Amino acid sequence: MTDFFKDIPEIAYEGPDSTNEFAYRHYNPAEMLNGKSMEDHLRFAIAYWHSFAWPGGDPFGGQTFERPWFGDTMDLARLKADVAFEMFRILGQPFYCWHDADVRPEGATLAESRSRMEEMTDYLGQKQEAQGTRLLWGTANLFTNRRFMAGAATNPDPDVFAYSAGIVKYCMDATQKLGGENYVLWGGREGYETLLNTDLKRERAHAGRFLQMVVEYKHKIGFKGAILVEPKPQEPSKHQYDYDVATVYGFLKEFGLEGEVKMNIEQGHAILAGHSFEHELAMAASLGIFGSIDMNRNDYQSGWDTDQFPNNLPEVALAYYEVIKAGGFTTGGTNFDAKLRRQSLDPVDLILAHAGAFDVCARGYKAAAAMLADGALEAARAQRYAGWDSAEAQAMLGQGLDEIAARVEAEGIEPEPRSGRQERLENLVNRFT
Amino acid sequence: MTDFFKDIPEIAYEGPDSTNEFAYRHYNPAEMLNGKSMEDHLRFAIAYWHSFAWPGGDPFGGQTFERPWFGDTMDLARLKADVAFEMFRILGQPFYCWHDADVRPEGATLAESRSRMEEMTDYLGQKQEAQGTRLLWGTANLFTNRRFMAGAATNPDPDVFAYSAGIVKYCMDATQKLGGENYVLWGGREGYETLLNTDLKRERAHAGRFLQMVVEYKHKIGFKGAILVEPKPQEPSKHQYDYDVATVYGFLKEFGLEGEVKMNIEQGHAILAGHSFEHELAMAASLGIFGSIDMNRNDYQSGWDTDQFPNNLPEVALAYYEVIKAGGFTTGGTNFDAKLRRQSLDPVDLILAHAGAFDVCARGYKAAAAMLADGALEAARAQRYAGWDSAEAQAMLGQGLDEIAARVEAEGIEPEPRSGRQERLENLVNRFT
Amino acid sequence: MTDFFKDIPEIAYEGPDSTNEFAYRHYNPAEMLNGKSMEDHLRFAIAYWHSFAWPGGDPFGGQTFERPWFGDTMDLARLKADVAFEMFRILGQPFYCWHDADVRPEGATLAESRSRMEEMTDYLGQKQEAQGTRLLWGTANLFTNRRFMAGAATNPDPDVFAYSAGIVKYCMDATQKLGGENYVLWGGREGYETLLNTDLKRERAHAGRFLQMVVEYKHKIGFKGAILVEPKPQEPSKHQYDYDVATVYGFLKEFGLEGEVKMNIEQGHAILAGHSFEHELAMAASLGIFGSIDMNRNDYQSGWDTDQFPNNLPEVALAYYEVIKAGGFTTGGTNFDAKLRRQSLDPVDLILAHAGAFDVCARGYKAAAAMLADGALEAARAQRYAGWDSAEAQAMLGQGLDEIAARVEAEGIEPEPRSGRQERLENLVNRFT
Amino acid sequence: MTDFFKDIPEIAYEGPDSTNEFAYRHYNPAEMLNGKSMEDHLRFAIAYWHSFAWPGGDPFGGQTFERPWFGDTMDLARLKADVAFEMFRILGQPFYCWHDADVRPEGATLAESRSRMEEMTDYLGQKQEAQGTRLLWGTANLFTNRRFMAGAATNPDPDVFAYSAGIVKYCMDATQKLGGENYVLWGGREGYETLLNTDLKRERAHAGRFLQMVVEYKHKIGFKGAILVEPKPQEPSKHQYDYDVATVYGFLKEFGLEGEVKMNIEQGHAILAGHSFEHELAMAASLGIFGSIDMNRNDYQSGWDTDQFPNNLPEVALAYYEVIKAGGFTTGGTNFDAKLRRQSLDPVDLILAHAGAFDVCARGYKAAAAMLADGALEAARAQRYAGWDSAEAQAMLGQGLDEIAARVEAEGIEPEPRSGRQERLENLVNRFT
Repeated sequence: MTDFFKDIPEIAYEGPDSTNEFAYRHYNPAEMLNGKSMEDHLRFAIAYWHSFAWPGGDPFGGQTFERPWFGDTMDLARLKADVAFEMFRILGQPFYCWHDADVRPEGATLAESRSRMEEMTDYLGQKQEAQGTRLLWGTANLFTNRRFMAGAATNPDPDVFAYSAGIVKYCMDATQKLGGENYVLWGGREGYETLLNTDLKRERAHAGRFLQMVVEYKHKIGFKGAILVEPKPQEPSKHQYDYDVATVYGFLKEFGLEGEVKMNIEQGHAILAGHSFEHELAMAASLGIFGSIDMNRNDYQSGWDTDQFPNNLPEVALAYYEVIKAGGFTTGGTNFDAKLRRQSLDPVDLILAHAGAFDVCARGYKAAAAMLADGALEAARAQRYAGWDSAEAQAMLGQGLDEIAARVEAEGIEPEPRSGRQERLENLVNRFT
Repeated sequence: MTDFFKDIPEIAYEGPDSTNEFAYRHYNPAEMLNGKSMEDHLRFAIAYWHSFAWPGGDPFGGQTFERPWFGDTMDLARLKADVAFEMFRILGQPFYCWHDADVRPEGATLAESRSRMEEMTDYLGQKQEAQGTRLLWGTANLFTNRRFMAGAATNPDPDVFAYSAGIVKYCMDATQKLGGENYVLWGGREGYETLLNTDLKRERAHAGRFLQMVVEYKHKIGFKGAILVEPKPQEPSKHQYDYDVATVYGFLKEFGLEGEVKMNIEQGHAILAGHSFEHELAMAASLGIFGSIDMNRNDYQSGWDTDQFPNNLPEVALAYYEVIKAGGFTTGGTNFDAKLRRQSLDPVDLILAHAGAFDVCARGYKAAAAMLADGALEAARAQRYAGWDSAEAQAMLGQGLDEIAARVEAEGIEPEPRSGRQERLENLVNRFT
Repeated sequence: MTDFFKDIPEIAYEGPDSTNEFAYRHYNPAEMLNGKSMEDHLRFAIAYWHSFAWPGGDPFGGQTFERPWFGDTMDLARLKADVAFEMFRILGQPFYCWHDADVRPEGATLAESRSRMEEMTDYLGQKQEAQGTRLLWGTANLFTNRRFMAGAATNPDPDVFAYSAGIVKYCMDATQKLGGENYVLWGGREGYETLLNTDLKRERAHAGRFLQMVVEYKHKIGFKGAILVEPKPQEPSKHQYDYDVATVYGFLKEFGLEGEVKMNIEQGHAILAGHSFEHELAMAASLGIFGSIDMNRNDYQSGWDTDQFPNNLPEVALAYYEVIKAGGFTTGGTNFDAKLRRQSLDPVDLILAHAGAFDVCARGYKAAAAMLADGALEAARAQRYAGWDSAEAQAMLGQGLDEIAARVEAEGIEPEPRSGRQERLENLVNRFT
Repeated sequence: MTDFFKDIPEIAYEGPDSTNEFAYRHYNPAEMLNGKSMEDHLRFAIAYWHSFAWPGGDPFGGQTFERPWFGDTMDLARLKADVAFEMFRILGQPFYCWHDADVRPEGATLAESRSRMEEMTDYLGQKQEAQGTRLLWGTANLFTNRRFMAGAATNPDPDVFAYSAGIVKYCMDATQKLGGENYVLWGGREGYETLLNTDLKRERAHAGRFLQMVVEYKHKIGFKGAILVEPKPQEPSKHQYDYDVATVYGFLKEFGLEGEVKMNIEQGHAILAGHSFEHELAMAASLGIFGSIDMNRNDYQSGWDTDQFPNNLPEVALAYYEVIKAGGFTTGGTNFDAKLRRQSLDPVDLILAHAGAFDVCARGYKAAAAMLADGALEAARAQRYAGWDSAEAQAMLGQGLDEIAARVEAEGIEPEPRSGRQERLENLVNRFT
């Protein structure tokens, strides 16, 4: 036991009237809803990177957090893991997630980095077993080290492609060994800064081949989890190849991967792409590629990934509404890709930021489920499209422009618009949020 | 002859030192470059809608332009066409483009609208023949009339889908009759305002089927031009289905249309999607779907389609650089989807806004061609990726993650980053612009 | 009685458990809070323009609403007023607001416009008296007519300045006659499109003199209400002179008006300026110029004024928190500068959009009052700045840099950062929303 | 002599036809224009921080630059200064600028930091004298160290205010000793992240008092340069107090400083505030507070300060047009607050990025001067406002609303709009750029 969180009690459910800062008011893991516990519906995961690896810097200032585990040794990496699992115990969520760079210090060579990762995999495996916390997903950090400044799979230098392949291989191995339920790829540096020095077609071809290799290796080692791609626009490269769900879908189709890869969708990335979170969720569901979510909140007026903890109930409820409509999570879950504001220095901030986020998510999920159970929203939607259920409308979809045109003229069809009722539907949502 | 442009002379090329406002300083249609005239390289087209149909309104104010042809009669439609062709004569560009709604008054029924379109098609055909101006493309306005407020092909009411089919059919017929070199679809209302009342999957399926019908009808009538889709994000619907080139590519793949449909790419739409114009051009070229361009300029800080005349030489040059690299225009061209600022009331503003745009485009095209001829930029690019030309690098693309990883460890590969030289390449561009 | 709202009952309070769409669930006008009724706290007003004068157009489509009072005659203006007051009766809010252009058809001359305004003033006065609805504020529309395309007070043509003066004079007269509690100026066209044709200094000087004239005329006629300026950035002019609260404050100081003019702050305008609504409210309060609010909601990703009905409880609560801290409303109130989405065609949409907005505002106001009563948020704030309450800290504010520097060195002061506790405070807010 | 820039020649002017990458094509320091050399018109300065202190990190990756002077010792600080002055010699610009944190390693106490600054001041002074490079301005870094995370002058902790006063004092002393022509304040952390924990009024009062202290100290020590404030919106604090020129003007008026302080205006900051660079320049000039510029370029689609080297001639020309109209620089100059892209690793990138920027600025300045000499733009502007030059128009400014209204009605004034001619003026600009 470290003493980093000393005096902070385990957070337990006390109900909505509790004023105890160290209690869940809405997240009751054991609460049953439609035959499944809230823990199993929400599948909360904590992100190792923001909580344990981020020093609190921003482009105008350096480290604000002073953590006893900051440093480059394996001893400190183990201390970090100890503290992490203490936080997991205090919060009681079922899952966590990592990049290799979060859990092990970088080695001088690929071989050393791999060996350190293997050592930490064993260490994390013991802690998982002891505590029951599971790995939602693993991923490789192919963006922080300067070798990746011009891309990983899309780097002009084939050696960087090779090096990246090496890292992803050992990350997939570690994920499988730790029973991870998914493996995630986020193309941090897969994009470009200026077209003047970029061969866009070649870079995309390399990115496509790299993703095929990942899928091939998954099958080779018999990894049963899902391969997930996480779209993100605008940063860190000005022009990111995995801009949003629709873009990645086209990419998967181009490289024959639409049956093998699903989406890990982040609220903040959706916002930066000009979409709502629920748009991205609905788009992925409609294309059959919905996988998992990164839950956070993005400042709408800051043009970068602010990764704040979610706190707006109506927004969270509408997102989970789409998750439930998509069938809920299977291998996926709710990963909190959220970080403390850099002024939130205290260990208690780290605990309570997550506790508040768990609460707003649980409340939002229950509100979404109640809206679906109520049925008024879905009934209004069905009624709006009811005309398309007729045999005549369905037949029309098999006809040609000229046939249809002839019928419109012959029947003198003149469609009369009907109210979209947006405000009334928004009022309806406010009955539940 | 109307007297709308009275006293305005035909614009002729006088060379860069001319201070005559009514002369081209850079656009010399007959100038030969790489064996082709500048007229044939640039293929300028004027947009009927902005120049002749737009009254100058904005969300806070109504009509500012007072044009003698504004009104709903066929006589006024013919007057409008007369003035339009006078402008085409004064400017001397080879092409123009229209929506049905620009050239004919709306009828009380589909049949009447069609019949009026046929009448105007004959009238325009005579004028084309007399003057030699050609049709770059036709398109249907499926967004202004209130019947389309909730979509055309994606409308919840199948009768609107049918009505839209009827309009597109007669627009394709008119385009073919007038020798149009392309037919364009822009999904103005194909998107949604609120997911609360929207069946996204159903709407996209209908949009896909509609586009298939257009392609089927093209083949049925033997139309030889290209079918082009014009991507646009953010407006008029908050969530537009044809967000950008990459999104539309995925859509085409989903509905098996990637071999049949190309892109009409607009500068302002690229900007609103968070991309540069040249990104969208390069993306389309890399996917084999580059078709044509809508040239304009968007205010970078206004979150809507400002459709200003292009006037920034370096930006225009970089766009044409991608066009030339994509092989130049075949059926496509440079359509000025640009409108006067609403305070630019005078006929002379309409002429000179286009003349200035022609000049900056010609200058940009020549700068782009000179950069390519110089070769330094392409040489730098080739050199940056030269590592990939080796047999070993190419072989790696056929291997698996584990093979590659083993080689990296065995050979102790540690890639050393090389400068991306962005500023030096930008300096190079400034030698030509 | 018109039959526009036939069969729609008056909306009454039924409590939070009501599922009656035609009931208030949170807005109980008679409910007492801190010695004042909710009606008097919130002072709801309905905007004539969005509800009765807006046809539903957007930049890509025309009118969608079909209202029997649309047209240019005085009879239709009276019908419009009849329907408006029926809506006010159904909703039961205490106030409304207008522009001259909303309530009377434009005349052929200033004299005719004035005379029509006087006639409508009498008509509205009778209706106010009969029903008890009051005027929160009047204002002049100096932006729709093409004569204002280049500005009103800032127009390059002094005749437009003069014409604007004439309109504002009769609007102030009408406001006073109808017992208006404020007079508002929004500088719709006071700004510029391109600096190339603009004399910024001269235009601002004219704007300053115009505002002085308004204040002088207020005193001349003995108008007892407040003069309010409404800041807005970005549109309709690209560069608006009244960008935000801080900008207008500098303008007022420049022209000696900071003691005479207060702010009417709109949520959507705050957003477009890159601020939060509560920032603008707090800024105005800190400068002693807080007046009134225009309540609505802006899409964060659309770069224009979307004027949606408010529906997000946490956002509304934080705004009212600042209003209450500023002392609450005196002459000001909560004006709903919100419009239906253009697909919301039905009379019932107009009623229920407002009813939902009243509810979310009442709920937000009560949540804000409860947070203040609870005191935890204010206690945390006071504690954070407690160091400044010491005599030494206060004395330092009277010293010079060198004195202070000497003390820091002498005492070896090395400040230790303390947590800003943002997430914990956000969790606290979520206890109330 | 270090060997950092070995083999890089001094950059000399060779004229526009030169293809030598290591030559100026447009910047000829000795070229006379309107009786003054281009060196004296442009007054170029190089920023110590971006060129010598920035390691190349971004929020997703660490250091990319490997500079032999990176580290925390005084020896390395001297090496850094040696290299810096070698770059100044190679480029030949007359000025440079620094923050204290750029030139000296942070001390363990304020006294140590001050003492190191004094030592480096002597060292820099010797180098200035030897080489003839002068100091355009000095400034204090009150944003990087974690003690400033919640503000410097606006910190909730009065000890941080005191510490900041100590730093500014020694920076002003150093600036004076080195003959600096201005002293700049940029309020990096003067703003707030969340209103929930912020006392906005108190913070602004402290910021006002702090600025007064700076002015008082300037007079106390007899510093003859200008005190400049640099506005910036959006970052690093979400809500920055010095948002833009108009905001700072109001602030200066509030604290009685408008006669003592001028503006240092940055292109990128203007863009982030929603303005054009030239808007901010014209606004400052109109308020009599124009001082100096930070020249760079901001990506219009990235919502943060990208600080790229300027490279767009038309934009640069329009900015200098306003500078010249404002009377040109007196104590101010053109400081390149621009940094290499993080992939531009090589010493030669640092040299050539600046050389290209000097060239585009010189070209832009000459274009601006030519436009003014031509006079057509100013003539068009004067003519547009000519109506205001009449005695009647001027008299109107002394009248009241009622007098003016009476005259409009009596004379039947009905203003007729005139074209704003924007596109024609843009064409005119393109004759010079």
